[in-house]
Amino acid sequence: MTWVTGLEGSPYGVHNLPYGVFRTAAREPRVGVRVGAHVLDLGGAEQAGLVFAAGTLGRPRLNDFMALGRPQWTAVRQRVTELLTDSAHRAAVEPLLLPLLDVELLLPFDVADYVDFYSSEQHATNVGKIFRPGQPPLLPNWKHLPIGYHGRAGTVVVSGTPIVRPCGQRATPQGPVTGASVRLDIEAEVGFVVGVPSPLGHRAAAGDFADHVFGVVLVNDWSARDIQAWEYQPLGPFLGKSFATSIAAWVTPLEALGAAFVPAPDQDPPVADYLRDEPHLGLDLRLSVEWNGERVSEPPFAAMYWTPAQQLAHLTINGAALRTGDLYASGTVSGDERHQVGSFLELTWGGTEPVRVGGEERMFLADGDTVTISGTAPGPDGTTVGLGEVTGTIISPR
Amino acid sequence: MTWVTGLEGSPYGVHNLPYGVFRTAAREPRVGVRVGAHVLDLGGAEQAGLVFAAGTLGRPRLNDFMALGRPQWTAVRQRVTELLTDSAHRAAVEPLLLPLLDVELLLPFDVADYVDFYSSEQHATNVGKIFRPGQPPLLPNWKHLPIGYHGRAGTVVVSGTPIVRPCGQRATPQGPVTGASVRLDIEAEVGFVVGVPSPLGHRAAAGDFADHVFGVVLVNDWSARDIQAWEYQPLGPFLGKSFATSIAAWVTPLEALGAAFVPAPDQDPPVADYLRDEPHLGLDLRLSVEWNGERVSEPPFAAMYWTPAQQLAHLTINGAALRTGDLYASGTVSGDERHQVGSFLELTWGGTEPVRVGGEERMFLADGDTVTISGTAPGPDGTTVGLGEVTGTIISPR
Repeated sequence: MTWVTGLEGSPYGVHNLPYGVFRTAAREPRVGVRVGAHVLDLGGAEQAGLVFAAGTLGRPRLNDFMALGRPQWTAVRQRVTELLTDSAHRAAVEPLLLPLLDVELLLPFDVADYVDFYSSEQHATNVGKIFRPGQPPLLPNWKHLPIGYHGRAGTVVVSGTPIVRPCGQRATPQGPVTGASVRLDIEAEVGFVVGVPSPLGHRAAAGDFADHVFGVVLVNDWSARDIQAWEYQPLGPFLGKSFATSIAAWVTPLEALGAAFVPAPDQDPPVADYLRDEPHLGLDLRLSVEWNGERVSEPPFAAMYWTPAQQLAHLTINGAALRTGDLYASGTVSGDERHQVGSFLELTWGGTEPVRVGGEERMFLADGDTVTISGTAPGPDGTTVGLGEVTGTIISPR
Repeated sequence: MTWVTGLEGSPYGVHNLPYGVFRTAAREPRVGVRVGAHVLDLGGAEQAGLVFAAGTLGRPRLNDFMALGRPQWTAVRQRVTELLTDSAHRAAVEPLLLPLLDVELLLPFDVADYVDFYSSEQHATNVGKIFRPGQPPLLPNWKHLPIGYHGRAGTVVVSGTPIVRPCGQRATPQGPVTGASVRLDIEAEVGFVVGVPSPLGHRAAAGDFADHVFGVVLVNDWSARDIQAWEYQPLGPFLGKSFATSIAAWVTPLEALGAAFVPAPDQDPPVADYLRDEPHLGLDLRLSVEWNGERVSEPPFAAMYWTPAQQLAHLTINGAALRTGDLYASGTVSGDERHQVGSFLELTWGGTEPVRVGGEERMFLADGDTVTISGTAPGPDGTTVGLGEVTGTIISPR
């Protein structure tokens, strides 16, 4: 039991403890942990000698802490739990609990490389049906390997950052034109954050997942469908994606998700040896997409065909090094039903079937629109783990 | 005239002065400038008060120096030229000239984001003919925008780093198999290194090229053609490229290339306004590819369809931010002739026409093979500017 008041039923109780980076007028950027509607100032706690993490908790990003590795992650989490549950610590710790409303949340980690997978069978099938009607919706390679590509790490921004509508070329019947995107979309995804690096030439096994991956962060991979459609042959998405990718301010450690691991969908045909993960586990993360405050979709992460452990093994089968701060995202999360899809492309079936938002018929994002993706997972003993939220409002280009 | 002896006719005379990072047993990693067969220890020179760059020359990467911007780049170059030409400085500077053989060259800068373009019409045409025989070799978008994609920044390595042959999936008539790549290739490219960043939402104009770009570096974008062919639909190259990209240890500043700017090929159809660069200039960089010491190709960079200024404008038309250390490469450089192509895929026409190397018929890279790409450019007053070299030897996977 915690001595912190007001945590009963909170998805941010001591069973969760996600990490972020914050600052206040008086406090330089530092690591914090979310506790209900408060942030526990971990940088301050380390300075006061209440927790020990080699000085990494006073840094302005999570990277140095994440580089310490799982034994240290576990030790810090245990210590933080102790600080919040043993009332002997209350007097020392309470002054370090700052109301969320009083802090500014920053990008939690410097993104090293950003990889985006494409691991929802339902999403890939929907996209195939929309863009290649009458043909097999999944390409021949799709069930043999988790398709992915590299995105732009330098434009990953923290939740709340305004999203400037991108300009670029799009195809029209009269030829390509340049201007602001008219098919601006979202992709609701889950990102995995690498803490422990691996050297060049090394292959990380699926079973090494928990040694390398620190935690999970919600991702909105904003996508300009018109720019993407014109540019992506033959080398894949580029400017249709690289203008911005938003992530939540909170990284949920894997330890908080112990109760969320569930059997992943069966894979047929059988996968290559290096992609075999036993047990073959996905995560029961339940996303929610709000468009201007109206819930329009509830994508179920448990439906993902490829697991994050398989994605890690695939990412490194060629000997590619991992760095602390690497972020790999799942790809758009879509379930079987129309109200479970993770993009407006699917929600409006390629921009042909409008949805009602705020009493209007809508297809893609208008300036001023706000999209908020949130998520929860089952926690221990019937609790709920909150995954934070990733929100952004579209503003017009200058 | 320089007081340094042995520089007559050297492509690394005082007209060149490329930047790198080096260390010795006695000296921590720091910035240096190549002068003939020596490195001028710029970190030591700054410490001794001989040159001033806000302390950035003692750092283990070029990034902080590159972030200072063009006026500082020019001032440091002028000062280094003065140190090497005014014999009044000889006594102070000579002890800072270290034989290249005595230093270890390191990765010259931390790569922020790595983008690879596809800007040679000849290369794109060759690839189209090889992979899509009987169809138009260039896709409809190719002449409207410089096609590009993001690569893996974390696996950019300095020249001389051994290249571990990547493993991965490839298609066979019996279905996909996993193993070491059997079609390992090179791509001879030229990279452009961003010094001055731009904020999210800003569009850099083609005319801003020299304000943002610090200099030029040779690139070998190693490519596993079999892995790439199986994985790349629909999101582009991923593991077929991400195992390693080698860059030269020397970054040639734009100032050294003043005499190398030449009119770029005419563009038809006319390009979008944001891609118009006036004057429309390419660079007369002459590459050379050696396979186990035998020259097999001489790709001419002057033939590139899209210019580096156009690539910069395209990269940011969607508001993507630039960061110090961003590297964008040209794409494979190929000229009109078979002996001018920048990949073995083209040299052997898709692996169907072997070339003789070391008395043997060869298609792709074998373990133990070494590939060295070097380059020169015309310098002022009939001099030659050496672009360094990027070399790598293939080793078998563990």
